[in-house]
Amino acid sequence: MKTIAIVGVGLIGGSFALAMRKAGFNGKIIGVSSPPTIQKALARAAIDEALPLAEAAAAADLVYLAQPISGIIATLDLLDTGALVTDAGSTKAVICETGRKLQRGRFIGGHPMAGKESRGVENADADLFRGRPYVLTAREPQLETWIERFGARLVILDPVEHDRLVAFVSHLPQLLSTTLAAVLAGKENVAGPAAADLTRLALSPYDIWRDIFATNAGPIDAALAAFIVRLEEVRTQLRSSDMEALFSQASTSARALRGK
Amino acid sequence: MKTIAIVGVGLIGGSFALAMRKAGFNGKIIGVSSPPTIQKALARAAIDEALPLAEAAAAADLVYLAQPISGIIATLDLLDTGALVTDAGSTKAVICETGRKLQRGRFIGGHPMAGKESRGVENADADLFRGRPYVLTAREPQLETWIERFGARLVILDPVEHDRLVAFVSHLPQLLSTTLAAVLAGKENVAGPAAADLTRLALSPYDIWRDIFATNAGPIDAALAAFIVRLEEVRTQLRSSDMEALFSQASTSARALRGK
Repeated sequence: MKTIAIVGVGLIGGSFALAMRKAGFNGKIIGVSSPPTIQKALARAAIDEALPLAEAAAAADLVYLAQPISGIIATLDLLDTGALVTDAGSTKAVICETGRKLQRGRFIGGHPMAGKESRGVENADADLFRGRPYVLTAREPQLETWIERFGARLVILDPVEHDRLVAFVSHLPQLLSTTLAAVLAGKENVAGPAAADLTRLALSPYDIWRDIFATNAGPIDAALAAFIVRLEEVRTQLRSSDMEALFSQASTSARALRGK
Repeated sequence: MKTIAIVGVGLIGGSFALAMRKAGFNGKIIGVSSPPTIQKALARAAIDEALPLAEAAAAADLVYLAQPISGIIATLDLLDTGALVTDAGSTKAVICETGRKLQRGRFIGGHPMAGKESRGVENADADLFRGRPYVLTAREPQLETWIERFGARLVILDPVEHDRLVAFVSHLPQLLSTTLAAVLAGKENVAGPAAADLTRLALSPYDIWRDIFATNAGPIDAALAAFIVRLEEVRTQLRSSDMEALFSQASTSARALRGK
């Protein structure tokens, strides 16, 4: 692999570039982004040069799509390249379906499950993926090698199974936090640390979520339905000793979820 | 006020003692607790001496009950004192009902909405209440003066209204976190920062919660029901532009809840 084109050089695209450099990649990294982003990416030494999409894709062995989901889909629709193509979108079924229509080249969906509150290439971090799951939708030895060098935890998942799982582990927590914050409006004067803790995610901007809801509404609806069923059970158990078993099970699961 | 008896010298009782000292109280502080706790409280200089409950209550102008809720209720049942009595229990209706039966003395319910993950007098902190709500169930000039000196935010709330509010701002977040952790069991391999964030509260030990569920099951059930109604609405809105309004409302509320 000699030349990489990164389309969308924000937090994830920029971190991918820095992680590749740190992991020993010494080929060329081309950025495809808006002029202000390109300026910041060059200043950050995340990319070597900037080109329009068609020229970058023609020059690259690997095209890395790190735009918002709708941007990834739009790019895939017009991409013409013989290169290996992957992405960093947080839903996979719709993206992989679009990727299968590539005339040339080969698409493997990806989802680095890492993030930061602060966005943009100025916050890019060579270690952003370290210790975090990095999902690929199929095996691909070249990509796997680099992901392992990043110190990320490689997870191979079918796109549909990926979307079902992230509806639970990522989209459900976001919607619980958002809904809780809305329900607690007007009760701020007695809010303690528990409310603050559970509503941190509710500060997330909507622009990321529009695309997630548009491409994963079915699995999210199923996760919400499953959660409501469990919460109705909790209502019936409130006065019973079943609550102790629930707390114990939840505490074990929480430790595992938090990597402890 | 010359002599304070603190019953239950753990994190909250110990922090109350240290906060009183810092706020300028220079009378005597008597601790009522188990022998190992008394040793730690003396070592921490949170209390001046230790006495059994009856003697401490007889000597005190203020009795501060900082045990678990069931302990506070048991103490109120057998307390005989002419002093002002208050408590730090996290539900108020059942405790205040018990407090009203005091033969002598006068009971005002209290709830400092502050805490820490680490418990015990060894983690007591003179600034634990600073910037946090401190609820009293009725006006009481002496208590109000000290609470203001702690830098806490005084909130006067009827016990029933208090319990209705904490069911939303405190007990509901805990149960959402616990239920989410239980629902996510087995999905740890793809859990990202959102799942970790929302399940931190699920690590809470059950022993505190047993008493809360026992004394506030009705309001908690109502809060869970209200949350489920809102979550069912979210299910119907997932594909609509209403989600943008929800995120915007939630983000405003979250900032207020987090004091930003």
